[in-house]
Amino acid sequence: MRILYHLPLSPYSRKVRLALGEKRIPFDLRSERIWERREAYLAMNPACTVPVLTEDNGLAIADSAAICEYLDEAYPEVTLIGRTLAERAEVRRLACWFDGKFSTEVTRLLVYERHLKSLMGRGNPDAAAIRAGYQNLKPHMEYLGWLAESRAWLAGPNLSLADLAAAAQLSVLDYIGDVDWSVNEAAREWYARVKSRPAFRPLLTDRVSGLTPPPHYADLDF
Amino acid sequence: MRILYHLPLSPYSRKVRLALGEKRIPFDLRSERIWERREAYLAMNPACTVPVLTEDNGLAIADSAAICEYLDEAYPEVTLIGRTLAERAEVRRLACWFDGKFSTEVTRLLVYERHLKSLMGRGNPDAAAIRAGYQNLKPHMEYLGWLAESRAWLAGPNLSLADLAAAAQLSVLDYIGDVDWSVNEAAREWYARVKSRPAFRPLLTDRVSGLTPPPHYADLDF
Ligand SMILES: N[C@@H](CCC(=O)N[C@@H](CS)C(=O)NCC(=O)O)C(=O)O
Ligand SMILES: N[C@@H](CCC(=O)N[C@@H](CS)C(=O)NCC(=O)O)C(=O)O
Repeated sequence: MRILYHLPLSPYSRKVRLALGEKRIPFDLRSERIWERREAYLAMNPACTVPVLTEDNGLAIADSAAICEYLDEAYPEVTLIGRTLAERAEVRRLACWFDGKFSTEVTRLLVYERHLKSLMGRGNPDAAAIRAGYQNLKPHMEYLGWLAESRAWLAGPNLSLADLAAAAQLSVLDYIGDVDWSVNEAAREWYARVKSRPAFRPLLTDRVSGLTPPPHYADLDF
Repeated sequence: MRILYHLPLSPYSRKVRLALGEKRIPFDLRSERIWERREAYLAMNPACTVPVLTEDNGLAIADSAAICEYLDEAYPEVTLIGRTLAERAEVRRLACWFDGKFSTEVTRLLVYERHLKSLMGRGNPDAAAIRAGYQNLKPHMEYLGWLAESRAWLAGPNLSLADLAAAAQLSVLDYIGDVDWSVNEAAREWYARVKSRPAFRPLLTDRVSGLTPPPHYADLDF
């Protein structure tokens, strides 16, 4: 069976889970304790990050962007990258925006400081980093709201990898209670639509031991 | 005419210049002072990073990964991503490795601390960051050498985006004199091969005012 090696609060793993779900591709989910640096895992992905996808034919694919491009090429029926060159350019620009810019400016700061640091016994959260993360989240929510208002989905008329990349980052922040959805109605409405898709359901039932999400996390009508 | 907005020491711009060169696609190069946040530029790329590629038909593409995927789709004669699904997965894994991991662990630390910081008047270089950058470069050179030894090119039998992404990062470090090529013979031999390609020539004649590269920078026989 196809296997996705993942961690429940990894946004890149979540993006791939959503892509597999939207394409209705069945897969088994396996937690990988990357910090143990398992030899067989390193052989598949020397960067030792999650996610990694393995296919029954032995193909192992590392890096969430590489996995999503692969999925769109190997299972093209439902495209998540778009049809025309212009659509595809816009989807990829935004997917890179959320995977890269949003993650660096917001998710890494908040999730690392408020969750991973204590988990890994690396001392107390850095208040300045947390402040910066919250500060950076504001313009990102505005941009998200602006995109959601100007288009049916973030990159254009159809749901795409851009929506999945954005929702993956935000769902992790939402799990740790860091998103105030009242600040932008268009962003909230967009997230409600993504959240109600069948592919999103498994993410809403994920639980990390010792970390309880706020009540609205799994609520479709938040 | 097709225009690439770039900066001479931007590794992501260099990667796209190499891709255009390998595909023999003509283009004009334009320096973009991203720190001035030009309105027409922000409209094409709200992240306000280089590179951005514009086509004569009005299409503007932001993000170097999105540009390279676009180029392989729009001008498929010379492929830089590979033919089979397995080849394409490996090329993309490695391109993401150099664009992401290598850049974060090495290029950003060294180029920012040793060059950009003084340029932007942000004070003295941080010795600890520079030390970390040099330290991280070692295992990366080993991995590069190992790939170069096991395969004709980094991702397999053919030159690919993986080679261009790696060479783009290394050429910027080489310009500021930060690569000791004597530490790994296979890596040096691979770089000599990339460097001697016609697509590489324009990068070797680039000069940034106030910053002279070491004599070996433009030497094909270093
Ligand atoms: N570019 C990679 C990044 C993956 C990544 O950074 N994953 C995180 C979890 S969200 C991880 O495994 N971090 C562990 C590490 O960096 O050592 C991708 O898109 O898959
Ligand atoms: N993901 C983008 C990153 C581009 C990027 O970070 N470019 C740098 C120069 S190498 C830049 O413009 N930095 C300015 C900034 O981040 O404000 C890409 O691949 O094009």
